[in-house]
Parts: sequence; C-alpha cells; structure tokens
Amino acid sequence: MPPMIEPKTRRAALVALASLAAAGAAWVAPGTSVSADHASAAGRIIGAELVDGQAYALLQHLTDRIGPRLTGSAGAEAAVAWAAERLRSYGLAVRTEKVMVPRWVRGAEEAEIVAPAPQRVLVTALGGSEPTPAEGIAAEVVEAGGLEGLEALDAAAVQGKIVLFNAPMTVRGMEGYGPAVAQRTRGAVAAARRGAVAAVVRSAGTLSARLVHTGAMSYAEAVPRIPAAAIAAEDADLIHRLLASGETVRLRLRLGCRTLPDVESANVVADLPGRQSPGEIVLIGAHLDSWDLGTGAVDDGAGVAMVMETLRLLRALGLEPRRTIRGVLFMNEENGLRGGKAYAQGHAAELHRHVAALESDSGAGRPTGLSATVGPGGLDMLRRDLALLLRPLGAEEVVAGGGGADIEPLHASAVPLLGLSLDATRYFDWHHSPADTLDKVDPRELALGAAALAVTAYVLAEMPGTLPRPAPPEPAAPRRP
Amino acid sequence: MPPMIEPKTRRAALVALASLAAAGAAWVAPGTSVSADHASAAGRIIGAELVDGQAYALLQHLTDRIGPRLTGSAGAEAAVAWAAERLRSYGLAVRTEKVMVPRWVRGAEEAEIVAPAPQRVLVTALGGSEPTPAEGIAAEVVEAGGLEGLEALDAAAVQGKIVLFNAPMTVRGMEGYGPAVAQRTRGAVAAARRGAVAAVVRSAGTLSARLVHTGAMSYAEAVPRIPAAAIAAEDADLIHRLLASGETVRLRLRLGCRTLPDVESANVVADLPGRQSPGEIVLIGAHLDSWDLGTGAVDDGAGVAMVMETLRLLRALGLEPRRTIRGVLFMNEENGLRGGKAYAQGHAAELHRHVAALESDSGAGRPTGLSATVGPGGLDMLRRDLALLLRPLGAEEVVAGGGGADIEPLHASAVPLLGLSLDATRYFDWHHSPADTLDKVDPRELALGAAALAVTAYVLAEMPGTLPRPAPPEPAAPRRP
Repeated sequence: MPPMIEPKTRRAALVALASLAAAGAAWVAPGTSVSADHASAAGRIIGAELVDGQAYALLQHLTDRIGPRLTGSAGAEAAVAWAAERLRSYGLAVRTEKVMVPRWVRGAEEAEIVAPAPQRVLVTALGGSEPTPAEGIAAEVVEAGGLEGLEALDAAAVQGKIVLFNAPMTVRGMEGYGPAVAQRTRGAVAAARRGAVAAVVRSAGTLSARLVHTGAMSYAEAVPRIPAAAIAAEDADLIHRLLASGETVRLRLRLGCRTLPDVESANVVADLPGRQSPGEIVLIGAHLDSWDLGTGAVDDGAGVAMVMETLRLLRALGLEPRRTIRGVLFMNEENGLRGGKAYAQGHAAELHRHVAALESDSGAGRPTGLSATVGPGGLDMLRRDLALLLRPLGAEEVVAGGGGADIEPLHASAVPLLGLSLDATRYFDWHHSPADTLDKVDPRELALGAAALAVTAYVLAEMPGTLPRPAPPEPAAPRRP
Repeated sequence: MPPMIEPKTRRAALVALASLAAAGAAWVAPGTSVSADHASAAGRIIGAELVDGQAYALLQHLTDRIGPRLTGSAGAEAAVAWAAERLRSYGLAVRTEKVMVPRWVRGAEEAEIVAPAPQRVLVTALGGSEPTPAEGIAAEVVEAGGLEGLEALDAAAVQGKIVLFNAPMTVRGMEGYGPAVAQRTRGAVAAARRGAVAAVVRSAGTLSARLVHTGAMSYAEAVPRIPAAAIAAEDADLIHRLLASGETVRLRLRLGCRTLPDVESANVVADLPGRQSPGEIVLIGAHLDSWDLGTGAVDDGAGVAMVMETLRLLRALGLEPRRTIRGVLFMNEENGLRGGKAYAQGHAAELHRHVAALESDSGAGRPTGLSATVGPGGLDMLRRDLALLLRPLGAEEVVAGGGGADIEPLHASAVPLLGLSLDATRYFDWHHSPADTLDKVDPRELALGAAALAVTAYVLAEMPGTLPRPAPPEPAAPRRP
C-alpha cells in the first residue's frame, strides 16, 4: 500500500495549489517537489484532456481506418506511416527507425473432433506456429491441466498424440492471465519433447462466447516444431467431458499458417524536446502492432492513442518540460519484440540519459496508478512528488515491479521502468481475440488514461531530480520449458 | 398479475397437503382442484427431479455426442434416432412420423470491407439464403436502421447497393428480440423490392463478443432472391461509423450456401397412455433441430431434454394420469416449421381431443411460469388449479398469450396452447450463435424447468376438467414485407 495522504492535508494542499497556481506563485508542497507550477500544469492537462481530448479519435482512426496490424502486414505498415505523419502534424521531430521483423501469416485453419462423433471445433493458430500438412493432422487427444499437468503424464500417453492444455483462466485480470500464458507460449515445446504431434490450448479469457484467443508461442532448438493452436474454451470443455466419460477423442487439425522471410518495418519515434536538458529523455511507449483477429483496440491501440495524445496535448498546451519527452510506438511486441530490442540496441549510447521509460500496454480501462521498477527510494519519490497530481484521476496507486514488454530491454541499462496501471478486469476477455474492437473502449476511461500518462510524463520530465536507477536484472537462467 | 394466494392460506394449505398426502387422504384445496393426490404427485415429481433428475445428462448427450442438428443434416437424423431409442427405453410407445424437410447447407462464407480501407467482417449466412456468385458480390453499403428505416430511404439510394439493417437489440430477453427478428426475416425481401443486391443484418443479442447470429429469412414470390447474411454487431458498428463520417463503404460478400432438394426426416412422438381417457391428449413439445453454428443447447436442446425427462420421470414414478401425455420432438422449427405443420395435418382427426399443447422453446433459464392461449376462464383455471403446485419452483406466474412455434399450427383447431416461461435474460446472447453450447446451461435451472414442465403436464392430464378452448386465430392478412 502506498503511504496515505491525510484527507485533511490533501484538502488543504489542493486549496493552496488552486489559489497559488491561479496567482502564479512559486509554491512547493511541504516535503515534496509538487510545486504550484506542477499542479497548474497537471490541472491544465487533465482539464484539456477531459474536455477536448483526442485520444478516442486517434484510436478510432487506427482501428476503423487501418484495422488489424499484425507485424509485417499491410495494416502494420499503414499504421507506421499514419502515426509518423500524424505526429509530425503536431510539430514534433519524428523519425521511423528501421526494424527487421518476422512475417508470420495465418492462412486457413480448421479443426474438428472426428471421434467419438464429428463436431466442429473453433480454432486459431498461435502466432509463430508451423503449419500442419495440407491434409491436416488427425490424432488422439490427451489432456493436460497445464504445463505441470503434462509433467504428470506418462510419456507413452503423450507419444503420437495431440496434447490439449486445458488450465482455465479462473481469475479475471492480470493475475489470472499468467497460467494461461504459460501453457500457450511453452506448451508446444513441452508437448513435443514428449513426442506429441500437435498442441492445442484452451483460449484465455473468462467470457463464455466461443472466442478464440491467439497469442505468441515459441519453439526450442532440437525440439520438433509441432503445430500449435488455441481452441475456444467451450470446445476445450467439450473434449474434457468426452475424455472424462471414458471416450477416445480424435481431433483433426489443419493450419495453413506459415513464416515468410523477415521484412523491414519500423518503430515510430517522436521527440518533444526538453527546454533545459534535451539530452535527458523520458520515454513513453506503446506498441503499434496488434494481433490479426480483431482490430487491436485494447491491445494496444489504446496505448498508442495515449502516447500520441500525450505528445499532442503537451504541445498544444505549450508545456515544455525541462527534459525531452520521447514517444516510441514499438513494432512487433506481440510476436517477437523486435522493436523493443532494436530500440535498446540502436539507442545504447544514450540509455544512461534515459531517466525513465513508461509503457501503456494494459488496455483501455480506467487508470489506477503506476507500477515501477526503480532504485531504492524511487517508489517513495513517485508517491511523494507525483501521486498527489494523479489523485484527481483515481490513478494514485504506485506499486513496485512494473514496466512493459517493449521497454524491458532497457532494464539492462538500468533505466527506471514504469507501467501505466489500468483496470484490466475485462481486458483478457477481449485481447488477442476477434472481439478486441473499438466498442470495448469507453472514451472517458481512455481520456483518464491519456491524462494520467501525460501528467506522469510531464512531471518526470519536469521535476528537479530524477528517479534512482534500478539494478539491472539478473541474467536469466535458461528455462527448460 | 395472477391472484395472490395469502401466505397464511398457503402455509396452512401446504401443511395440510403434506400431512394429508402422507396419510393418503382424499383432500381438495378449497375453491380449487388441487387435491392431496395432485400435491403428492407434484411433490414426488419435484423432489425426484431435483435429487436425481436426468435432464442435464440428456442434454449433454444431445449436444456433446450429436452436436448441431440443422434440419436435413446427419446430426438431425442422429438426434431423431437417438431420441426415439432413448424414449423407447423408458417403456413408452414411440414412433417417428415422417416429415419432408428443406435441406439448406451453409458452405464457405466471408465478407470484407473493401473501401475505404480493407477490413475483415465476421459474417454468417441467414438460413435459407441464396448463395452469392462464386466471386462474391461487391457493392456500396447503404444503412437502414431497421425495416422502417429502409422505408425512409430513397429508392435510388438503395438500387444496386447492399443494405445493412442495423437496428440494435437494446433490451435483453424476448422483448428486445422482436425488432431484431423482423429485420432478419423480412429484410432481404424489403431490400430486394428496392433494387438492393444483397442484405446484411446486425446480429441479434446484447453480448459484445463479435458473435454472428444466424436465423431464418424468407423470400417472396416475384421478388428477386438476394443473398442475406448476419454480421457481428461490432462490424455493423464499424460500417456505421465509417458511413457517419461521410465515407463511401464498399462491402464484398461471398456466401457458398445453397438449398438442396427436400429430404425425409421425422418428428419423434412418444405416448404415456392415460389410465382413464387415453384418447384425450396433453401434448408437450420442443424442437429437435437446431442451427448449425453451436450445438443448440439452449435452442432448443434444453426443451428437448425437459420433454424427454418429463416422460421418463412420470414413468419412473409410476404416475399414470387420467389422460395421455404425448411428447413430440418436432423437426425443422428453425427454418421451415415443417414438423409442426406436419403434426397438425397428420393428427387433424384427433386435434379436438388434444386438451392442451405445451411447448418449451425459450432456453434453459429458471422457469417463471406459463403463458397460455386459452378460452375464457382458462387463465383463472390455471392460476387456481395449477399455480400453487408450481410455486415451490418459482414458476407460478400465468400470463395470457403464449404457446410456441411448433404448436401454433394447432391453434386453428382450437387447441389450448401453453408455453413454459423461462428467464430469457441471457438467452438471445447465445441462441443461433456459435456460443449456444452446453456450458450456458445451469443444471439446477434446467432441472427446475423440467420439474415445472412435468408438474404442468401431469396436472393438465389429471385434473377433472379441461381448459376452455381458445378461439381459432383470425386468418392472417397477407403481409407485404
């Protein structure tokens, strides 16, 4: 829990802020770096965004006019061109930074239970999966509750079978997503090691609407690259019931996906130059690519819109903080992270001058605060110098251990990493599925998120000091899936 | 509102019923035909169903082992064979009564917005639709809010276009379904009269999960038979937004569905013979066919299970009412009503001895009561002689004007028609869509419904008098869609 600010103190402070800001007085909240200037800027940002923000309009363009943005697709390239042009129209210094990206394409896909009785199964290939032969793969299904469930199975029981990973997502939000991700990303390798011919996983999410949820999966060297797909939760339940009743279940899976040679794409980078220390950079990021089934409104069109809107808004308000605020729209977060890695590599020489990197990639729910991976004292500093200004948005909670996939490669250079926390209760019901569309976004909640991002970026770029840098992560032990 | 029974009276009556039933005494509730025998039978039915009912197991077999049951499909025929065999296993007199049915098959289907920018649209053909040419139909889209909205459009604005019927379902349950049905069933004819080349309708339902909802549509003589399909609500919203922003939207629609020659199918008819007046018949019905996208669990597998379970249960309990209870599992409710019509025709000679027909075709929600189309005094009779016994199930509400699609053809012969009312709040979010699967059914709610159906059937077959017969319907004026 963050330290509580006494309601009485807060009321007094806000009254003082309002009057002092109006008077233009140089006031500093006791024990903080929250000055009348900060408060005034935050007030202008929040007011302008809620009254006349453009985050939703940006998101609408991205999803309605461009649509799905799978890395390497025409949609992704259109998004790069549009975002760069739009950011330039705000008067920012914009460049597209080349990234070579994987190009995986989906193709036709279908599945059916062929025994004990024919039934269609709703299926979608996991991103990166190898195809099946044209005629498909037909084999008996063996069910594992999850990765641990597979370990409990006899190797002979798996050999030549299709493994169904069927651990359900029972808790909504980020907490429940972990187990669903593990079986999706690592299930194929684990199953192949035991001789399985394909892996199918129960779709993530808790909404019972026969949705398929795709997502990334990976292969490992010297392990057979077996096809991997997600099936609707209802179909996983059906197979479970048939197996539980003692039936032998045979599934036929046909996936036409394939991996083409890498293609050139780009991160979009836009700078709002600092007025005093332009070499010091506060990075705000989101990812421009999306999965192909929906239009990527919540994952991560919303983040893209918030980042673009932050830059537009600060520019429009004439707010020029001390340091540079750099917006980065990363390419290929979903199936390769090539954009995040390329940024870290290409900007290695200036990462020691990146004073913070803040990502928004948790949907479009109302903002609740920040998560942060920072050095000792950093959390307290955020709570003391920033939280008061996020409180009008309900976004004052600061918790340890945050960041984002695209900015994680900056961790090795000890860049303080922050994630914008958003209410993700419904996020996983839609993300990676065909249902990830604009209507899932509440315009007001998106505006609250954009305002929270803008206030945070502004304060980090303007406050006198900088966040203590975190220790670089321990080198990861190779994990045997 | 039904007449209220005073709580004090009810408590006293129930105490009396329990003790008298236990003693086997011949007791009659004052002012009603609810005797100790009726109460005892109802108590045995309800208790047995809730403790040891098999409705859910029947539904599970129908949906897991047989699956979708589109009229004319292998699934439908498997369902006929299974239901007949299962009902025979209960010791009933069972026959399959031949019905010639339409055979419409779906085929491949796809749609995409081709301008202003390409986007995939989730689509499914409406049942009975003609196919598009193999290369599809590509045309500009004109939006109508509903059938009335089309009337408001200039004929020139519709000529050569694809009409999008986009009236949303804003109220959950049966009340909200009406407008959605009208544009689905009659949209193609209305659009074709004005020169449209195809019709697409917004999918019914209020769940935002990119679901497509199919359903029946019809053509009219001398009106071009244009292809008709449902698109996901999200896609209808997208097209709406593009049009609202002034764009010209072009859609490409490809439907591979087609209508094959009629095939032979059957209604399944099972009699539990009456002990005193076997020629008098209480019909209980549901429809065995379903749409093809889901497994037809709520529409109308649940009704089938309740009808079968009623017959099983009464037989197992040795309850032999005065009159015959006849279960009828109708074929082809969804796209032709051939089963209902064939039954009325084939049994014309005995319809004057059908003392009631009761259908369950509103899903699997908890039962709330009965709707009834009966002669003067009939509703009061149901409230007086039956409602007390349905009250333990929360199903005592009796409202005017009910029945069911399959039994409606009996109306012309003045058969009293009843519908089992079920909570349909969520019903239309799933029915006719891929999400209509077993997991949407709560076993306990299904058991409550089965018990309500069984109690009702028993009492109607056992009570001393019969329901007053309703006036036959006015001959329908031909409706110009």
